[in-house]
Amino acid sequence: MNTPFEDYARRTKSYSKNADLRSYAGIATFFKSNFGDDWSQIDIALVGLPSEAGLLQRSGTRHGPREMRAQSCNILPHNPLTKVVPFELARIADIGDVPIERVLSLESVTSEIHDFYVKLRTANLIPITAGGDHAITYPILKALGAGRPLGLVKIDAHLDTAQSMAGTTLHHSAPFWNAVKDGVLDPKRTIHIAIRDGGEDFQKFAYETGQTVIDIDKFHEMGMKAVVAEARRVVGDGPTYISFDIDSLDPAYAPGTGIPVVGGLTSYEGMKILHGLRGLDIIGGDVVEVSPPWDHAGITALAGAQMMFEILCLSAEAFARRRMS
Amino acid sequence: MNTPFEDYARRTKSYSKNADLRSYAGIATFFKSNFGDDWSQIDIALVGLPSEAGLLQRSGTRHGPREMRAQSCNILPHNPLTKVVPFELARIADIGDVPIERVLSLESVTSEIHDFYVKLRTANLIPITAGGDHAITYPILKALGAGRPLGLVKIDAHLDTAQSMAGTTLHHSAPFWNAVKDGVLDPKRTIHIAIRDGGEDFQKFAYETGQTVIDIDKFHEMGMKAVVAEARRVVGDGPTYISFDIDSLDPAYAPGTGIPVVGGLTSYEGMKILHGLRGLDIIGGDVVEVSPPWDHAGITALAGAQMMFEILCLSAEAFARRRMS
Amino acid sequence: MNTPFEDYARRTKSYSKNADLRSYAGIATFFKSNFGDDWSQIDIALVGLPSEAGLLQRSGTRHGPREMRAQSCNILPHNPLTKVVPFELARIADIGDVPIERVLSLESVTSEIHDFYVKLRTANLIPITAGGDHAITYPILKALGAGRPLGLVKIDAHLDTAQSMAGTTLHHSAPFWNAVKDGVLDPKRTIHIAIRDGGEDFQKFAYETGQTVIDIDKFHEMGMKAVVAEARRVVGDGPTYISFDIDSLDPAYAPGTGIPVVGGLTSYEGMKILHGLRGLDIIGGDVVEVSPPWDHAGITALAGAQMMFEILCLSAEAFARRRMS
Amino acid sequence: MNTPFEDYARRTKSYSKNADLRSYAGIATFFKSNFGDDWSQIDIALVGLPSEAGLLQRSGTRHGPREMRAQSCNILPHNPLTKVVPFELARIADIGDVPIERVLSLESVTSEIHDFYVKLRTANLIPITAGGDHAITYPILKALGAGRPLGLVKIDAHLDTAQSMAGTTLHHSAPFWNAVKDGVLDPKRTIHIAIRDGGEDFQKFAYETGQTVIDIDKFHEMGMKAVVAEARRVVGDGPTYISFDIDSLDPAYAPGTGIPVVGGLTSYEGMKILHGLRGLDIIGGDVVEVSPPWDHAGITALAGAQMMFEILCLSAEAFARRRMS
Amino acid sequence: MNTPFEDYARRTKSYSKNADLRSYAGIATFFKSNFGDDWSQIDIALVGLPSEAGLLQRSGTRHGPREMRAQSCNILPHNPLTKVVPFELARIADIGDVPIERVLSLESVTSEIHDFYVKLRTANLIPITAGGDHAITYPILKALGAGRPLGLVKIDAHLDTAQSMAGTTLHHSAPFWNAVKDGVLDPKRTIHIAIRDGGEDFQKFAYETGQTVIDIDKFHEMGMKAVVAEARRVVGDGPTYISFDIDSLDPAYAPGTGIPVVGGLTSYEGMKILHGLRGLDIIGGDVVEVSPPWDHAGITALAGAQMMFEILCLSAEAFARRRMS
Amino acid sequence: MNTPFEDYARRTKSYSKNADLRSYAGIATFFKSNFGDDWSQIDIALVGLPSEAGLLQRSGTRHGPREMRAQSCNILPHNPLTKVVPFELARIADIGDVPIERVLSLESVTSEIHDFYVKLRTANLIPITAGGDHAITYPILKALGAGRPLGLVKIDAHLDTAQSMAGTTLHHSAPFWNAVKDGVLDPKRTIHIAIRDGGEDFQKFAYETGQTVIDIDKFHEMGMKAVVAEARRVVGDGPTYISFDIDSLDPAYAPGTGIPVVGGLTSYEGMKILHGLRGLDIIGGDVVEVSPPWDHAGITALAGAQMMFEILCLSAEAFARRRMS
Repeated sequence: MNTPFEDYARRTKSYSKNADLRSYAGIATFFKSNFGDDWSQIDIALVGLPSEAGLLQRSGTRHGPREMRAQSCNILPHNPLTKVVPFELARIADIGDVPIERVLSLESVTSEIHDFYVKLRTANLIPITAGGDHAITYPILKALGAGRPLGLVKIDAHLDTAQSMAGTTLHHSAPFWNAVKDGVLDPKRTIHIAIRDGGEDFQKFAYETGQTVIDIDKFHEMGMKAVVAEARRVVGDGPTYISFDIDSLDPAYAPGTGIPVVGGLTSYEGMKILHGLRGLDIIGGDVVEVSPPWDHAGITALAGAQMMFEILCLSAEAFARRRMS
Repeated sequence: MNTPFEDYARRTKSYSKNADLRSYAGIATFFKSNFGDDWSQIDIALVGLPSEAGLLQRSGTRHGPREMRAQSCNILPHNPLTKVVPFELARIADIGDVPIERVLSLESVTSEIHDFYVKLRTANLIPITAGGDHAITYPILKALGAGRPLGLVKIDAHLDTAQSMAGTTLHHSAPFWNAVKDGVLDPKRTIHIAIRDGGEDFQKFAYETGQTVIDIDKFHEMGMKAVVAEARRVVGDGPTYISFDIDSLDPAYAPGTGIPVVGGLTSYEGMKILHGLRGLDIIGGDVVEVSPPWDHAGITALAGAQMMFEILCLSAEAFARRRMS
Repeated sequence: MNTPFEDYARRTKSYSKNADLRSYAGIATFFKSNFGDDWSQIDIALVGLPSEAGLLQRSGTRHGPREMRAQSCNILPHNPLTKVVPFELARIADIGDVPIERVLSLESVTSEIHDFYVKLRTANLIPITAGGDHAITYPILKALGAGRPLGLVKIDAHLDTAQSMAGTTLHHSAPFWNAVKDGVLDPKRTIHIAIRDGGEDFQKFAYETGQTVIDIDKFHEMGMKAVVAEARRVVGDGPTYISFDIDSLDPAYAPGTGIPVVGGLTSYEGMKILHGLRGLDIIGGDVVEVSPPWDHAGITALAGAQMMFEILCLSAEAFARRRMS
Repeated sequence: MNTPFEDYARRTKSYSKNADLRSYAGIATFFKSNFGDDWSQIDIALVGLPSEAGLLQRSGTRHGPREMRAQSCNILPHNPLTKVVPFELARIADIGDVPIERVLSLESVTSEIHDFYVKLRTANLIPITAGGDHAITYPILKALGAGRPLGLVKIDAHLDTAQSMAGTTLHHSAPFWNAVKDGVLDPKRTIHIAIRDGGEDFQKFAYETGQTVIDIDKFHEMGMKAVVAEARRVVGDGPTYISFDIDSLDPAYAPGTGIPVVGGLTSYEGMKILHGLRGLDIIGGDVVEVSPPWDHAGITALAGAQMMFEILCLSAEAFARRRMS
Repeated sequence: MNTPFEDYARRTKSYSKNADLRSYAGIATFFKSNFGDDWSQIDIALVGLPSEAGLLQRSGTRHGPREMRAQSCNILPHNPLTKVVPFELARIADIGDVPIERVLSLESVTSEIHDFYVKLRTANLIPITAGGDHAITYPILKALGAGRPLGLVKIDAHLDTAQSMAGTTLHHSAPFWNAVKDGVLDPKRTIHIAIRDGGEDFQKFAYETGQTVIDIDKFHEMGMKAVVAEARRVVGDGPTYISFDIDSLDPAYAPGTGIPVVGGLTSYEGMKILHGLRGLDIIGGDVVEVSPPWDHAGITALAGAQMMFEILCLSAEAFARRRMS
Repeated sequence: MNTPFEDYARRTKSYSKNADLRSYAGIATFFKSNFGDDWSQIDIALVGLPSEAGLLQRSGTRHGPREMRAQSCNILPHNPLTKVVPFELARIADIGDVPIERVLSLESVTSEIHDFYVKLRTANLIPITAGGDHAITYPILKALGAGRPLGLVKIDAHLDTAQSMAGTTLHHSAPFWNAVKDGVLDPKRTIHIAIRDGGEDFQKFAYETGQTVIDIDKFHEMGMKAVVAEARRVVGDGPTYISFDIDSLDPAYAPGTGIPVVGGLTSYEGMKILHGLRGLDIIGGDVVEVSPPWDHAGITALAGAQMMFEILCLSAEAFARRRMS
């Protein structure tokens, strides 16, 4: 008879050749998952997107994916609170980073990202992405939402629905303006949680198009249960994307980010919002704005990796349900 | 027709020549406000006071103002939660640091500070100060409260009402003992919030003189609403000063401080106490004990700058009300 | 007549020759207590145990005791919230670090620790230990619980009731499996609080033997009062040990630890659990997994030292009660 | 009679209102010089250029100028080794940062920089610039060298004469290819010192156009005196620009940079190369690639500020000579 | 016709699928080389060995390989000073980390390492290893030197020829005592460079067995050329291993290490010693004692990666020569 | 027969009860020496002096002694290069920190220090002090040089012979002006090495009184041997004090200091200057200006501890010679 650890090690090894008791050992992939060269064998793709081409403030998000991979190796492949084991629900692999040729041109970066996610969608892969600045979410949504406007649960200190700044709308404060304009994001099925920065001018668009905004005051007034219920009501049954900007967390929890804003969520609150989304039709998600040069001891990247793991669990459950039905 | 950002940029530029989309650019002044050479054109003065002459424990607060200036450039000139835009209520400028000649003599430092704030008061400027250790608040109160004992809302891990230590009472643990003794602070209109350090011996004076003490346990028992109501009740309608010691926040939120004390406030709680003081007759305030050498990624200085901004908003509203009446 | 500070200084000096107003001065002992060469004059021994022989993940806990000593000098010798002054209830001294010869052999380390704590118990010293990884708690319990199975209040992100891993059961994830097997820990009188990592396989043993597990979700659902009541109910009146793994705190509060896990307690919550244990028959305790190389500005070591101080207060009260009865 | 310090303080105050004994006090300008609003009163302009639009590797150089300003306040206004007091040779001011509107477009950034330096040249200001990535040197040279191909002393780990990469030639590894192509840099009067990275392919252009390359091995073989003599021989009497890439220093001396390369110069060697250039016809210079997010205790920014100060001394001497002749 | 960069990119891609202009992108392997699953296609294996089982002092070397992989991505695949392009001389791949089951047993760790390197030798792979503490070199030498006592060029602050400490000889201060005892290391063909720590007692063995010791004083007296000549004389034509302990560098260059010793080499000196070994019959090597938790901005890991790259170049040249002959 | 390590351990234990193989273990005293309660049993006293009362610039030196104690535990009790074993030449102990009551008064601090060193001198103890800012050297010299003007070897970036600044002469830039004025320091027997900061005004006094100044340029021109010879010539046979300001080292080697100055010594050069002083009549010394809040991984404190150890070796040899004669 095996010891519990031997059982565990055997199971884990079955979905990751890379698995090892030692979190610090081995070439770092997301959650120690396999390298994904053959896309036909993958249901959910873990993707790195080390771009900061659209970042206007504190730099560093291009270093996000590598550090999130490193920290993700500290996370065991099962969810201790929800009990979900995503690797038993879907075939999951780390497919590396999005290749980008013209990294110094925001226009080109945007279209190269878009093209890559079109390929992923065509290949029926569910992408879960580690950014990168928040500008990356626009071309991702454009690819995933084409022909089917998506719902969105967004946890963020900022609305990111500004329009043109610095002569472009492709920057990291406007992805959701672009996505709504392009018809790939359904503003009625969009909710922003933990907002606490950005002027009224910038917020007009979100309100005018019927997006739901739960700023940090409202978050605390409503309480977690009501917030989660509201999120579920807003996005409903349709296909839904999750975008977790790490600056939704307080700088104490996430010092390593592009625009730190005082007064944010705890990491537990961030997790519980995601736990509250079980059962929704999640078709992908991202964690953005992790900026390792400003991090300490990897705590921001670890929080980012944890949120990515929660989105992975949600996506794996949704995938399994869809396959069943 | 302008884009929202163009509107915003034009408005902002109208109160700060130094304004720029780029938080990281430009010579750093508080909140990117103008340099204030001509005091006759200023209603509210943002002041740096880089002193640690009265500091007994972990050193570094002399470096506070410069780093708080740098981090304050990340804060937009409008308050996203209270919607206050202080720069539209009053003429605000950064007037630089308090000049001090004899920096190695605590007695001299104390009197030089006092003289400077007398000048500010004479010139009708409302000072909002970035410290420096907490010892600076005594000479400030002495200048601002002369002839009119002030009320005080103080958020702090310590009472700072000790008497003589190390052969002096001018150190950073006794400013409020001195201020009460001098008759410039009204102990009945004084409230301390978030206390969680210092022995019973030291606390006697505060209780005996009728000061209100809400230690961290009481803070959690009462809840935010009751705490704020109590603070408003204590200080009433009279002229009131706000002193925010950054060590009121937990070391997770404010590692960079002189006497870190476990078990403190979150940055959101700190902000909400200040939000709760709208409508009071605020005549100045300070944020003290930010110690950058022990900070990481500027999170303490950013939290300090945010609290300073909240005090600025409160002061600008009070100024506007007084001007109207 | 003395000033309050002179009174305070005189009292403090009476239980610590090492006491000094200046937290940063002097050879660092735990809470500036005396060096304890003569065990016959000591009731409660503060002990360093700089071992990481059983640590499987992020290294560094061997550096815990020295940094906890340094940070503990910031903590005054009286408890500002519970008002307990442990040094007036018992004779307390820092007896240095556990001597270990064969530091590279986990088996030998384990038995050398055990032998040392047998000596301490024989000499009637109550040990409060700064680790070190969590593996140290097994040989401590084996010494302290021999002949009297102990109750346990454990605050931790992990159950640490796994069995064999890496070919041994002496690692830092199995001390409580060993202690139950050896009959020195009473599983019915054992409670784990703040659990949020580790798979179901590993948890079976805890449940099967009747241990009480309050994971982080349950902690928030129950609320602090109910958690504390449950802890008191579980351990009852019998002799009880407290083990505080610093990873129970969120990485924002305790970045310097061996296995950081997102979604943890605040430092205030950690303190309040301990405050809730007053009156129990505490016979020792430890704070483990502080890993200074990953810490920033000593916040993790300071939090660890604070928890150690809380355990000291609980132990001193229990000691005084036992002496009285 | 005055004390030496009073004499010193009076002299210093005469060229900087901002001067203060306290390096840590005051709004930080380069070397505590005056703010330069009125260009007609300035001979040498200290300029910040916080751009990283052309940076291909480790991000962060947009934060360079602010941190170099802060660290420069530690540098006294006279040169202790060469005895030069630049402020007594020319009117020097900090004119703030180069305004850039379209920060996310490398093409636009390049032309906005160029336009600004054309204005500076038209106004007869000698610019000494704190970058920013090395891409900024191309538009600067284009402005300053128009109509008079410049000589160049460049201290750098890289040649930066690559051509198109990532679909553009405006990146930070090609400024000197562009400048030669545009005829604003004279390759025969160009010398690169401390080179130790980059492949043969990239180096062809430098050699083919007759540029002088002293790689780090050659630097050590020749010795400082011969290197300096060679630099003086190469650039001769004509107008000469100095570009100091902080990555020329070893990562031990300059950890905070975009592409750290092992095996570099000491900071003393960097200074002595610059000291060796006295008497040349220096018409401006820059220090680039300081990246504060990767720095520690400001040592990289301080080294950068020191090199900037040395270039200021050289420029002030050259200015004074030109004015005399 | 191609641009120089296109030529370069095509060449690089030919030996690494993982190659990318962006140093920060992609799953991190040593020097962005391919993953090496099929050993039959590999001549030189880059191996991670994240062990600190034999480490007696400051912990952290288990984190060395992952961080060295990350930093190695900053190093281009050609040697800018020696002009060697190792990937064109041999088939090179990253084969991941040495699997170790019983990580908490030094005996087991030692024998598991030995078994793995026996396999590598049997498969005709030349291993270049990133440690890990220095204890790993003994089992490596035991595997590689079996039947052919090896020569050794060792750059290190310590001799590491101590005998039993803490009850074992397998610790990180005795690998070369063991290797000589086992007959796998030829003491007459062994040279230690940069020694500056450890007592006379410990040094006896090295001298008695005829090993050559160049302590740091002798290093500076002789000068680089003579040191290199002596190293070549000592090891001669026979098969030779290189062991580079990063603590040979001064703590300024390598803060992140297990036993930092003041007064060490510069990184340039470290490189030049290795450059001086071209033409020797190198059959493998290692870089040990990189300890990332104590590092800053990756400078130690980068220096370690550079030394590893130099050993790779030497090994590739030696491999190519042997293949030719 | 014993193993070399057993011999070593026995010897070491004979002069330090605190000795332990493990550098990280135990209550930290200087070089793990005994606590020195009984001064009659001590020849050389290791003293901490955690003061920054005279510090004008970057704060933090009050934290120097504690961190230097911690780092000194990494240094073995014998000198590997000079072969001196100080503990076998004299009775050495750590006597704790200088007690200071009125820490906020520079005048009082100065006289309290003086009084303490008078006591030490009266008790015939040779003090070797870990500062603290450089202001402490004046009262030390006043005590040690009373009645016998001392010679001085000073390694420092600054002359520290300024006069009144900020209204006092007791600050950290004037100790040697005071000492000469008081007749306790013989200017003709005073040499300053590695000077590279401070204006001509400040230097006049040093030159006028006949002090020898070797600035950093002269240091490199002369070479180590000539510098050492000159130092020996200057101080001659008389009683001599050594003052090592850690800012003599380059910021790469000593980032943690009060006034970092680019272009400094390497740590090896610092050590070799001290090695060159063997045979002089050393009667005490200090290492000052170590400022831990700005340090990284303890490298500055370690360098400081090493220099302190070198001064200890020199002092022990001088003591032994005097005892013999």
